[in-house]
Amino acid sequence: MTASQPPEHRPGSEPGRHNLDPHLDRYAARTAGMTASEIRALFAVASRPEVVSLAGGMPNLAALPLDSLSRQMAELIAEDGLVALQYGSAHGVPGLREQICEIMAMEGISAHPDDVVVTVGSQMGLDMVTRLFCDPGDVVIAEGPSYVGALGSFAAYQANVVHVAMDDDGLVPEALRQALAEAARHDRRVKFLYTIPNFHNPAGVTLATERRAEILEICAEHGVLVIEDNPYGLLGFDGQTYPALRSMDPDNVVYLGSFSKTFASGLRVGWVLAPHAVREKLVLAAESATLCPPTLNQLVVSRYLSTHDWKGQIKTFRENYRERRDAMLSALEQHLPPGCTWTRPDGGFYVWVTVPEGVDTKAMLPRAVTARVAYASGTGFYSDGFGSRQMRLSYCYPTPERIREGVRRLAGVLESEMELVRTFGSVTTRAVSGPQFPGPDTA
Amino acid sequence: MTASQPPEHRPGSEPGRHNLDPHLDRYAARTAGMTASEIRALFAVASRPEVVSLAGGMPNLAALPLDSLSRQMAELIAEDGLVALQYGSAHGVPGLREQICEIMAMEGISAHPDDVVVTVGSQMGLDMVTRLFCDPGDVVIAEGPSYVGALGSFAAYQANVVHVAMDDDGLVPEALRQALAEAARHDRRVKFLYTIPNFHNPAGVTLATERRAEILEICAEHGVLVIEDNPYGLLGFDGQTYPALRSMDPDNVVYLGSFSKTFASGLRVGWVLAPHAVREKLVLAAESATLCPPTLNQLVVSRYLSTHDWKGQIKTFRENYRERRDAMLSALEQHLPPGCTWTRPDGGFYVWVTVPEGVDTKAMLPRAVTARVAYASGTGFYSDGFGSRQMRLSYCYPTPERIREGVRRLAGVLESEMELVRTFGSVTTRAVSGPQFPGPDTA
Repeated sequence: MTASQPPEHRPGSEPGRHNLDPHLDRYAARTAGMTASEIRALFAVASRPEVVSLAGGMPNLAALPLDSLSRQMAELIAEDGLVALQYGSAHGVPGLREQICEIMAMEGISAHPDDVVVTVGSQMGLDMVTRLFCDPGDVVIAEGPSYVGALGSFAAYQANVVHVAMDDDGLVPEALRQALAEAARHDRRVKFLYTIPNFHNPAGVTLATERRAEILEICAEHGVLVIEDNPYGLLGFDGQTYPALRSMDPDNVVYLGSFSKTFASGLRVGWVLAPHAVREKLVLAAESATLCPPTLNQLVVSRYLSTHDWKGQIKTFRENYRERRDAMLSALEQHLPPGCTWTRPDGGFYVWVTVPEGVDTKAMLPRAVTARVAYASGTGFYSDGFGSRQMRLSYCYPTPERIREGVRRLAGVLESEMELVRTFGSVTTRAVSGPQFPGPDTA
Repeated sequence: MTASQPPEHRPGSEPGRHNLDPHLDRYAARTAGMTASEIRALFAVASRPEVVSLAGGMPNLAALPLDSLSRQMAELIAEDGLVALQYGSAHGVPGLREQICEIMAMEGISAHPDDVVVTVGSQMGLDMVTRLFCDPGDVVIAEGPSYVGALGSFAAYQANVVHVAMDDDGLVPEALRQALAEAARHDRRVKFLYTIPNFHNPAGVTLATERRAEILEICAEHGVLVIEDNPYGLLGFDGQTYPALRSMDPDNVVYLGSFSKTFASGLRVGWVLAPHAVREKLVLAAESATLCPPTLNQLVVSRYLSTHDWKGQIKTFRENYRERRDAMLSALEQHLPPGCTWTRPDGGFYVWVTVPEGVDTKAMLPRAVTARVAYASGTGFYSDGFGSRQMRLSYCYPTPERIREGVRRLAGVLESEMELVRTFGSVTTRAVSGPQFPGPDTA
């Protein structure tokens, strides 16, 4: 009945390796792209207290006013528990969707609450958008490097990612043009450009304002939708914001937002703002994915926004992260061996480091963890095996002191690695296919 | 670049109808199965207070101890807020997974917490399981009728549903055998049997204990996995439980559980218990879907389980629902015109009614709503257009008094409808394709 596929096509099977999973013949083809990370095994070790983790993307919540949040939560259940604990709609709580529109207005977006769909974190937004638009084999264009979680969603729907270069001003318009021309030449169907314009994860750069209109024009010209992922937009260290792509081309941009970095990641409240027709389909897709996002969490966020000085709280977060960014940049300057380069973020969570030729950041990771420092190796942020000379360092979570200590340790590991390279030549790992899942934002 | 499909294959397009969606050419093929329900439009009307809704599947939360839940929530944030508000793992909180194993033990399941994956409600479990196993065109066998949300997930992954008949003792083994033989004859690949053995939604029947081993044997023989969906198992009105299919064949059953009906649906906490190899893939799939389930919600459930008399609470729920079930059955007996038949559930939320030939429950629904009573028409619970002589009545949410009034109104509508049929012959609606989404569990 369940006709066997020839062994070489079995999802999850690897040549020369026995797989004892009795369900092997049953998996869908898409599971072939779901590969467990070799890095994941390290995370158990990397999360030991003696290891400085510069790998994760966990926001620093210590600045949150837990006392008053605790009080609010109690009030919410006492006053509105029968609503908070009950099913809601797949569309999301109307009051929260109105507040979300006010937040987006800070980056120039004018939107109707009806066109907002609340999701279980921005990750679900990504998953839903890919579900709506990507058939197997469709092309998604993304910055190189790009967010590992997005690459995971694209892989889950068997989309092919084409990476486009960035520089210090973000996505390079000319490179985008070339990628689109190349896809057209090969008759490949490009579904959307996925971009993180502000304080990029993992690159730490921001798309220059003057490039934004050009990027939008290129996409409109080629009939390619834009997915704008903006979790960090309000975390510019000088309080600066940039005009959202959505504000410049409402009909051709689907916007993804999140409360994970500006309030609390553990609530898993994000949203999608989409053109009207797309929004209707999004609600149906969301309904089949989770029925509805948790009502409790939406009401917690809504109450927080209406009773707290949430803008003041974001300012506190920003100052926190700026101090950590400063600690990291000065430590990198002080400790990293010559030949290393890195980006200088003015917002967000991440620095993107390039190491000298011959050093392989993925091969080096176990040695780094042994030296009690962890990072996310660059290969996880590319779907094409690139990134072995790169690594992402996060300054969001550890204290400035720990950041300095971590960078000092990392520098030591790099020095030995470079010494090895000088002695024995390049030490590379075997190529791996598919995106890596270091779980960088949850570890 | 984005090569146009011929108009007749455009997802979402309907012959003879103009579609003004500029993104029409961009959608994935799977969106063709995402059709908005004609019933959905009625729900705005159906949710007016003067309408007795027998349509929804909302649990009756009035019995919950909101005061102490309020206190607990406050304590959770005060004592453990930095964990509750932070990212967790896609696998779920370990302590909760242990407690889940204790709950499952009540239905004979012996499981390791490692093999439990926490999901955003059981709906996400359904979505993940379908993602793992179903390629487009694969066959899923399900009871006829089956849960509308499951049909939605199957449609989202372009699986084809084959319905198998039930009787008062649940799924008919011989019918399952025939369906499998039929699929084999046509060389169709059957991926799994999806079944709700206990207090079926929407049919209200329970799979007889003596049939369970037989069903499992048939599936094992044919190499077909079993997906056991069991949200109502602890809501037997006499406190009776049935041996879970998972307890009888651990290696060939994936089990879906939920706190939506035994605690609080608005928290969206469910789980999947899967054989070890499947579980590893589930975690990867869940990571790409939502990164992680909300930590807050998991800790709320965990704290509730460890500090409340949750078994006592389930008993209270059961007594509540039994009283409502009694009210509904006696009202049906008293008011429904001759020729109507219905199931007699001994647990769960639903009664499944069959009306006399000629009456079309979908066509009748607007008239019922005008008469201030709503139900879920049977067609939503079949993926093949069947069910127009059936309807699901829920007794979970309204008070016994409202239930009696609702059934009285429904009987009046049915009488007029039967009168019409006698005068003018059958009044049927046009056939619709794809599952309907009445949002039955959230409306």
